[in-house]
Amino acid sequence: MAGNTIGTLFRLTTFGESHGAALGGIIDGCPAGLAIDLDFVKSELQRRKPGQSHITTQRKEEDEVKFLSGIFEGKTTGHPIGFTIENTNQKPNDYEHIKDAYRPSHADFTYQEKYGIRDYRGGGRSSARETACRIVGGAIAKLYLKHLNVSIQAYVSQVGHIKLEKKYQDLDLSKTEESIIRCPDAATAYKMVSYIEDIRKEGDTIGGIVSCVIKGIPIGLGEPVFDKLHADLGKAMLSINAVKGFEYGEGFNSINFKGSELNDAFVSSSVTLSGVEGQVENNKKITTSTNHSGGIQGGISNGQDIYFNVAFKPVATIMQDQTSVDKDGNETIVKGKGRHDPCVLPRAVPIVESMTAMVLADFALRNRTSKI
Amino acid sequence: MAGNTIGTLFRLTTFGESHGAALGGIIDGCPAGLAIDLDFVKSELQRRKPGQSHITTQRKEEDEVKFLSGIFEGKTTGHPIGFTIENTNQKPNDYEHIKDAYRPSHADFTYQEKYGIRDYRGGGRSSARETACRIVGGAIAKLYLKHLNVSIQAYVSQVGHIKLEKKYQDLDLSKTEESIIRCPDAATAYKMVSYIEDIRKEGDTIGGIVSCVIKGIPIGLGEPVFDKLHADLGKAMLSINAVKGFEYGEGFNSINFKGSELNDAFVSSSVTLSGVEGQVENNKKITTSTNHSGGIQGGISNGQDIYFNVAFKPVATIMQDQTSVDKDGNETIVKGKGRHDPCVLPRAVPIVESMTAMVLADFALRNRTSKI
Amino acid sequence: MAGNTIGTLFRLTTFGESHGAALGGIIDGCPAGLAIDLDFVKSELQRRKPGQSHITTQRKEEDEVKFLSGIFEGKTTGHPIGFTIENTNQKPNDYEHIKDAYRPSHADFTYQEKYGIRDYRGGGRSSARETACRIVGGAIAKLYLKHLNVSIQAYVSQVGHIKLEKKYQDLDLSKTEESIIRCPDAATAYKMVSYIEDIRKEGDTIGGIVSCVIKGIPIGLGEPVFDKLHADLGKAMLSINAVKGFEYGEGFNSINFKGSELNDAFVSSSVTLSGVEGQVENNKKITTSTNHSGGIQGGISNGQDIYFNVAFKPVATIMQDQTSVDKDGNETIVKGKGRHDPCVLPRAVPIVESMTAMVLADFALRNRTSKI
Amino acid sequence: MAGNTIGTLFRLTTFGESHGAALGGIIDGCPAGLAIDLDFVKSELQRRKPGQSHITTQRKEEDEVKFLSGIFEGKTTGHPIGFTIENTNQKPNDYEHIKDAYRPSHADFTYQEKYGIRDYRGGGRSSARETACRIVGGAIAKLYLKHLNVSIQAYVSQVGHIKLEKKYQDLDLSKTEESIIRCPDAATAYKMVSYIEDIRKEGDTIGGIVSCVIKGIPIGLGEPVFDKLHADLGKAMLSINAVKGFEYGEGFNSINFKGSELNDAFVSSSVTLSGVEGQVENNKKITTSTNHSGGIQGGISNGQDIYFNVAFKPVATIMQDQTSVDKDGNETIVKGKGRHDPCVLPRAVPIVESMTAMVLADFALRNRTSKI
Repeated sequence: MAGNTIGTLFRLTTFGESHGAALGGIIDGCPAGLAIDLDFVKSELQRRKPGQSHITTQRKEEDEVKFLSGIFEGKTTGHPIGFTIENTNQKPNDYEHIKDAYRPSHADFTYQEKYGIRDYRGGGRSSARETACRIVGGAIAKLYLKHLNVSIQAYVSQVGHIKLEKKYQDLDLSKTEESIIRCPDAATAYKMVSYIEDIRKEGDTIGGIVSCVIKGIPIGLGEPVFDKLHADLGKAMLSINAVKGFEYGEGFNSINFKGSELNDAFVSSSVTLSGVEGQVENNKKITTSTNHSGGIQGGISNGQDIYFNVAFKPVATIMQDQTSVDKDGNETIVKGKGRHDPCVLPRAVPIVESMTAMVLADFALRNRTSKI
Repeated sequence: MAGNTIGTLFRLTTFGESHGAALGGIIDGCPAGLAIDLDFVKSELQRRKPGQSHITTQRKEEDEVKFLSGIFEGKTTGHPIGFTIENTNQKPNDYEHIKDAYRPSHADFTYQEKYGIRDYRGGGRSSARETACRIVGGAIAKLYLKHLNVSIQAYVSQVGHIKLEKKYQDLDLSKTEESIIRCPDAATAYKMVSYIEDIRKEGDTIGGIVSCVIKGIPIGLGEPVFDKLHADLGKAMLSINAVKGFEYGEGFNSINFKGSELNDAFVSSSVTLSGVEGQVENNKKITTSTNHSGGIQGGISNGQDIYFNVAFKPVATIMQDQTSVDKDGNETIVKGKGRHDPCVLPRAVPIVESMTAMVLADFALRNRTSKI
Repeated sequence: MAGNTIGTLFRLTTFGESHGAALGGIIDGCPAGLAIDLDFVKSELQRRKPGQSHITTQRKEEDEVKFLSGIFEGKTTGHPIGFTIENTNQKPNDYEHIKDAYRPSHADFTYQEKYGIRDYRGGGRSSARETACRIVGGAIAKLYLKHLNVSIQAYVSQVGHIKLEKKYQDLDLSKTEESIIRCPDAATAYKMVSYIEDIRKEGDTIGGIVSCVIKGIPIGLGEPVFDKLHADLGKAMLSINAVKGFEYGEGFNSINFKGSELNDAFVSSSVTLSGVEGQVENNKKITTSTNHSGGIQGGISNGQDIYFNVAFKPVATIMQDQTSVDKDGNETIVKGKGRHDPCVLPRAVPIVESMTAMVLADFALRNRTSKI
Repeated sequence: MAGNTIGTLFRLTTFGESHGAALGGIIDGCPAGLAIDLDFVKSELQRRKPGQSHITTQRKEEDEVKFLSGIFEGKTTGHPIGFTIENTNQKPNDYEHIKDAYRPSHADFTYQEKYGIRDYRGGGRSSARETACRIVGGAIAKLYLKHLNVSIQAYVSQVGHIKLEKKYQDLDLSKTEESIIRCPDAATAYKMVSYIEDIRKEGDTIGGIVSCVIKGIPIGLGEPVFDKLHADLGKAMLSINAVKGFEYGEGFNSINFKGSELNDAFVSSSVTLSGVEGQVENNKKITTSTNHSGGIQGGISNGQDIYFNVAFKPVATIMQDQTSVDKDGNETIVKGKGRHDPCVLPRAVPIVESMTAMVLADFALRNRTSKI
């Protein structure tokens, strides 16, 4: 119960510290027979890796994943998929200056108090480097979801005060990867990048919002009471470093509607279903005319698009000197040096997608036992 | 994995439908030797029960809990605490009209699709009546937390557009129970109640925000990676019916700060610790000068107040006719009749507290194994 | 993690003490749409209830189960099935004499040490009365397994030195219920009953073996490494009060064979499979010519019969005075009085079947996710 | 729920196939601050590794473990301990001949049926090579248990018909490692080795019994109902390849006693406890005069020695040709070639100890939350 596992049937357990020998994990519960496209996994890691543009940290890591088990002749075998990602760019000496100091708004203090011991190098286990393993788990989950025709698309919708005013329906999400900030609207992307450049010059950091849209989701995913689909999505998002808030559907904005305005009316449309040869009948597909609910009702997907927002605070590591204390309570200065991300948002996009994918894969498997 | 259990060491599993024979649950993992104040449990149920004021549903239920096990001579035995709450005010005939119709923004459609069968009476398992069991689990958790000197106080901070502009530090939270809306600021409470009265007359509903403050929390609660304290708090809140968003600390507002502004500087103060007689020494207590983090850093409590907001949409049941479809896709009208809450917020306050209490009790127990 | 739950997808959580208000439980994860035959559940409880014959305890309990949720119009809804069984024949005064004394080979001492508090009435939570809840869970599981054409038949194969020498293949298991000892061989049953009558007159108790046979099991149930099918069956059996050993297939007798003698050779036979009309093809069914393995290979069912033995010690409550100590370590005499079972075996038969059924139902559901 | 994890608080998750790139695992939940003696871990792996004597398989593997995380400056950090063991002696071509054939009493058939795909090389995931990871987890657990003064000693007590007739109390268990068969009695060990040599010459295999003794166990480990200490020990043992039976205390032999003979009477003895200086008082220690129970009562340790037996069948791989079928049901011959263990018992000894250690470590942690 040390909290390094996520999922119930599709499960990822991770290990590894920022400057240890390697990170890694075990994906357990992936059904057998899934073709694994290794290039796709690599491309997902590329989207998260440091040093991918001038607005991310300049730490150089290739984040190369080695799969050690669970895949045979290109397909999953139903057995656990073990993998490692080596730490090739370790600079533990970079962290001697924080050996005894508590960096503001980092986990240094809480780890020391909780465990009585702490790997101070780069934050150890608290480093966002751990999210590389989530990308691997997410990539496998995405391959399973592709099989179910589910797509997940996240993008940056706000950086500081610069906000993308359009709704996801009015955006071409295929353009997200065209800008280094991963905002699908070119004009807004340009403003965001300029703003981050300014922030970086100040040695400061800035947060923002990642929005995410899920399309093609089957009806019925999610469990009614404690494990509502959005509850597990929320937990998954809140487990990402620097996340401070989560909302889905109309979210906090729901407050501004009356029930009569927010309710989504059910409607039906004729659908032609083709079954076994010779058997064709007209059936009706039920959906909703609006989607304030965000694709989830009673904790269960209703087939409409699921959409949600995730709020990221500015990362705590800044290139400015900060006052703090050491573990004996003596005042000290935490120097602003090393490599850092002025804005974590572009690298957070694939992480949000990966966590989403693992939650959906888990609920898709869980839903296989809902009926006799 | 059907999702009717919450917690890892302190666990609540619930059962029951709105109009079945009874609701109930099992609290497993509560340590032995805890004195159970039954009057306190009752008083907590009173805070949630329907019919407690003119701005809540007029359904009459006493929500009387019967404890069946796990308590002996007034104390917990370490064994599971089984309990039931009978449904005394069942009016299944009230629901004949929705037997085949899908109420907008309810779980009727998703349940039917997921299970192929549905107890339509009052929403069955999807009814918020299930939260009565959460109150019982929460009350036991609160008794354990009192033992640890932890307090949890939730209150209504917004109803529709009417917002309590003060921060929690500027409020007297002991006054929360003085108004039927459970807002500790009398003037704002008055406005909220008036507004809800108007909404009710329209046969409509309105949502809002419940804020929650935790004081006296030990340092070290929470697990680093997937089971961050705020991630599990978020999941617990999002599992409550009608919740659409969660944020902690500065939350979504974090976007409006730079890192240099949002970071919480560590400071230390001298503390006189008295140990075994004769042994007195000066020690230093480490804390932060600000608390934008909301009492959690790296997913672990740092001893500062934890505070968070929970957004509730307006409840879906309204006293107006709505167009919908039945399970065959034929158009139908869902009549606005029966008993309903024009605003669920005041009754949500003890639910938010209960879910918080269970999460904290769970993490307090989990933290007992962090060190050898 | 207080251990009152069994199963991963098909889960039973129980509560209740021997002389509290009621026992009960929650069955979570039973798929929706299963017809519940309440008479069958009752008949299963009848097989376990005390007082059913002169060789069992004379305690009078009807063990009437009340289902409180999860069943609607005779079918499961996919929601948790809550139930209670009231304790109607409580005689707490019968237990005043053991309030402070530790009964030999009972849980009195270990409970007191573990929890610092103990409900001494009838052993509290340690009483085998708790197994009534297992019967309920098992009955629901059996109904699900009938749906899959799986049958489970347990019987008494040994009482003290009186052993049924025939293998299960040479028995008519439909005759098990014809004798009060639940041994399908009339001659052996007669000897067993006579022996138990003698033991009872001595105020003593005797143990024995329950054997169990599973037929019609689908191929593929069980998980390869830690959750092997027989490992979970073994755990389930060992969790029953008074069980001291478990073996499956050839079990301990495997030691007496060489590999070349014990291996089960694979053979195939032609099978005519009828598919969609017009499509008939000859296929081959693979099975083994012998079944020393006991129907499980590599932890996974191979379609052959599963068979295993469970060893029960004589129950610890005897009608003789025994020396012991009280909780302060002072010597005392534990009087032999009250109601007891001279031999628990006949009542253990339905419990063994119930635990088996729950394990199989769980693995049948788990196996739904083995392939994409 | 794919079954590759064992434990609730002290958890081991493993991955890896016999002839894949590497095996490995994650130990999660080990408390922080535990000194890790790497030489001890290595020595444990040496006890299991192939090729250690002429009566084990001649496969050459050094089974070198690499720890990748969770240990900092020689101590555990409370974070997951990731590790890998490379497969250096892969000879996949040795297995071409069984690519399509089902080896008798192996997992080939059940895997193929369950997953529709199978890594046939050396049995893939079903290979006992996986137990190397259990040794690593067990070694860490043993270090934690040493800290609690608990010792675990397993030994071979029977090989085929050759049985060690002495009870563990009459043996010097420190001599177990002196014979290659790991039987502490020299004369019996000699006979066992001779017998295995004969079996090996026949190209055959033989099974036997591993006995295990736990000393110094704290009172109170184990949970009352489903997670009884012996139930989880039994499951852990039954999860080891080739295990067919488990019994603890008097086990199956309990059948031969009456209750009055088998019950363990409680007795007390004066103990001098030294507390804080100046405070000395006479107290009484409660124990039992006999130990038929095997150190566990009501599922919970009572402080007495825990002892149990584990039955291993002869391993299925023999050096003789066997008739079988291929996956299409066609008859084929499985050739007896390659490297194999004529008797797995000596290598099973450290595996039994490792599984025991992990179960005990888990319950020791679980027991930290039994009281407020």
